Amino acid sequence: MLEQLKQEVYEANMQLPKLDLVNFTWGNVSGIDREQGLFVIKPSGVDYEKLQPADLVVVDLNGEVVEGKLNPSSDTPTHVILYNQFSKIGGIVHTHSPWAVAFAAAQMDIPALNTTHADTFYTAIPAARPLTAAEIEADYEGNTGQAIVETFAQRGLDYEATPAALVSQHGPFTWGKTAAQAVYNAKVLEIVAQEDYHSLQLTSANLALPKYLRDKHYYRKHGKNAYYGQSND
Amino acid sequence: MLEQLKQEVYEANMQLPKLDLVNFTWGNVSGIDREQGLFVIKPSGVDYEKLQPADLVVVDLNGEVVEGKLNPSSDTPTHVILYNQFSKIGGIVHTHSPWAVAFAAAQMDIPALNTTHADTFYTAIPAARPLTAAEIEADYEGNTGQAIVETFAQRGLDYEATPAALVSQHGPFTWGKTAAQAVYNAKVLEIVAQEDYHSLQLTSANLALPKYLRDKHYYRKHGKNAYYGQSND
Amino acid sequence: MLEQLKQEVYEANMQLPKLDLVNFTWGNVSGIDREQGLFVIKPSGVDYEKLQPADLVVVDLNGEVVEGKLNPSSDTPTHVILYNQFSKIGGIVHTHSPWAVAFAAAQMDIPALNTTHADTFYTAIPAARPLTAAEIEADYEGNTGQAIVETFAQRGLDYEATPAALVSQHGPFTWGKTAAQAVYNAKVLEIVAQEDYHSLQLTSANLALPKYLRDKHYYRKHGKNAYYGQSND
Amino acid sequence: MLEQLKQEVYEANMQLPKLDLVNFTWGNVSGIDREQGLFVIKPSGVDYEKLQPADLVVVDLNGEVVEGKLNPSSDTPTHVILYNQFSKIGGIVHTHSPWAVAFAAAQMDIPALNTTHADTFYTAIPAARPLTAAEIEADYEGNTGQAIVETFAQRGLDYEATPAALVSQHGPFTWGKTAAQAVYNAKVLEIVAQEDYHSLQLTSANLALPKYLRDKHYYRKHGKNAYYGQSND
Repeated sequence: MLEQLKQEVYEANMQLPKLDLVNFTWGNVSGIDREQGLFVIKPSGVDYEKLQPADLVVVDLNGEVVEGKLNPSSDTPTHVILYNQFSKIGGIVHTHSPWAVAFAAAQMDIPALNTTHADTFYTAIPAARPLTAAEIEADYEGNTGQAIVETFAQRGLDYEATPAALVSQHGPFTWGKTAAQAVYNAKVLEIVAQEDYHSLQLTSANLALPKYLRDKHYYRKHGKNAYYGQSND
Repeated sequence: MLEQLKQEVYEANMQLPKLDLVNFTWGNVSGIDREQGLFVIKPSGVDYEKLQPADLVVVDLNGEVVEGKLNPSSDTPTHVILYNQFSKIGGIVHTHSPWAVAFAAAQMDIPALNTTHADTFYTAIPAARPLTAAEIEADYEGNTGQAIVETFAQRGLDYEATPAALVSQHGPFTWGKTAAQAVYNAKVLEIVAQEDYHSLQLTSANLALPKYLRDKHYYRKHGKNAYYGQSND
Repeated sequence: MLEQLKQEVYEANMQLPKLDLVNFTWGNVSGIDREQGLFVIKPSGVDYEKLQPADLVVVDLNGEVVEGKLNPSSDTPTHVILYNQFSKIGGIVHTHSPWAVAFAAAQMDIPALNTTHADTFYTAIPAARPLTAAEIEADYEGNTGQAIVETFAQRGLDYEATPAALVSQHGPFTWGKTAAQAVYNAKVLEIVAQEDYHSLQLTSANLALPKYLRDKHYYRKHGKNAYYGQSND
Repeated sequence: MLEQLKQEVYEANMQLPKLDLVNFTWGNVSGIDREQGLFVIKPSGVDYEKLQPADLVVVDLNGEVVEGKLNPSSDTPTHVILYNQFSKIGGIVHTHSPWAVAFAAAQMDIPALNTTHADTFYTAIPAARPLTAAEIEADYEGNTGQAIVETFAQRGLDYEATPAALVSQHGPFTWGKTAAQAVYNAKVLEIVAQEDYHSLQLTSANLALPKYLRDKHYYRKHGKNAYYGQSND
């Protein structure tokens, strides 16, 4: 069932340790088959060294396990919300990458201060508000997803152009057209978090990129007029 | 004598360099057989590259060497105190991991600012007070253990829920049900120390996690209602 | 065509990941044949793991592709300006190395605070001003090169003695007599950016090296009286 | 000539890249035969990947080359001064390790803030004053050594108990009974520089270790009452 997608999601999961984005089992990648309305996700708490494609769990958009012997990631309800609300995304990544966590714990956006950022993320990466005690008790992982969706709605952000969010006090979620692209976005987010941290320590000047520079870099790599690389993506 | 425990403690010691927790010989792991009241500990000043299971030293709960050709770790009296006072722990780790040392030298707790922390440590990791000159002269390593125990008593902390302490001016001790778990806790402590350092530089806001979020994450992974991973731990 | 130069530029490009100067495809090296007025540059968006010497693109000093099946780096117009204006350079490197990016985003020079810096760069590494919206729209990559050239002219800097610049909000460009030397300069720049960042956090004292010390170190390694190494370079 | 010493010094030099203490050729180790009054030092500007024991240069205590086809390290006059003035040392190391350079550029001592420091260095590691223009012009490398010696004299420091100094604006020198011990000291210095940097950012409190704690840790590892390791060193 969904063997090709399982292989893709497996390979995307295995990129997390290779790209230094996870310690231990602290990360997960999923990918969705939109036609069938089913997604494939890493099982909970399984070491990357032992993970096999057949261990991946198939889940439907109600969060019900459709296939798999293992428990799916404890973050599965967050993935369910994001797949339902962000209808064009094909893959989701959650990590505890340390520079992103530093911003998430500080409850601060990762600002758009350099073109490395704007090449991938059109705006600052928003930090969703902390959850309330009631939200945590009622449906922690689901409400984590709702807080991300709420943040994008309130700020008028385009989830395709800014494919990432911080969950305050917790860490980053990224997404993309595919699981592999979501992993790429997770790495870029970690890199720009590190760079931004240092820029913010060097000066208290307002360093936010102007819109015209964000436009230039973002659209240099995305959309029909893109001219970076060997073809439009 | 205690061959299986020696193997476990040997393997736990060898995890320290693999997890980037030690330079040179600056770290040690021990594990205890509670029935026999004997623990196994790394010999003092032996390179990890040369360490063999047979080099480990067996020590009783009075700190007397029961078996072994080599001197036990110079920190052995600290381990003795912790095993006597914290009766449910099965393994202890001491390292000079650099982010934890930075907090220890600053005589600051590692605060609970993110869920990575709360997944493993229920509260801030306390920095025990510096020892007095008299305590250092009388029984330095033993009083190091006493200062940790005193800190947990004074603050009303549960050593099972917060399996780590900083020794001011020195570095971290962690513990767990097994030597392997104590090593895991040593790595988590180093990771959150690094993350917390950066969060504290980003903002002077009070970032301490509320109790309801610490409850959620800690009990998501521990105790009878845990639902992270493939079974309750 | 230019097979030897392609090999040199290929090898210089492959040094970027080896020296931890690039993530993904975010960097490019070119080298020029001054007699023919042609330079060789990395193709745009090609993974370093897949790059082959034959993939390199030959470009003339008007920016026209003379040979090559792939698109040249999107930064090619910047290389064109630098080769035209800095007539003695033989190679150019652009990276997004993270410490240099932190200074570039902060729109700050990398100051000359230590002799590691002065051994390679005679002065502070200047941060060129940000481009205007009009400059970005008209010819982004070309105007990036013009801003670097303008900065050297306005400050009276010698591009041979200070073979590097930061593009504000973006990242570093370095150059040298050869592509290999430009890569060396890119690594030195990243190292001193990291060191300077930490020195600037340690103290607010004015730490700028006096001219006589910059003279000593720079000319110890460069010019006819150099005495570092096994021969004058 | 001095074949065994050459081998020892060669191996000590090769530890520098292995311990992440050098980039490129930016470091050198020497070792002395006190009976013959000759020391062996790395040649100037030779890549570590290509260095062979036979490349090492033999120099006398007047700084004259006694044997060797290559130029000795440009820092040789500094080594000459230190061997002449610090009569009990057997090996010297110079690096540009980045955390030590950050303190050297800041012209700040590396303070004694933790027991990792006191295990190896009995006091803070002093930053020698910057050289004057006249000193640089007259005998740069020799006066670098003189500034270190002057600093130890003025502060009443014991060069055996504090086997390291920073040269302001430049970087660290360390020494020891052997070349290998000097390399060990160079690594410890880099580690504590990193730790101290972070402690100093965490708090502005005075964190200097009290003398009784420095005594405890230093003499736990050194001298006739040492009890760390398997025998007194």
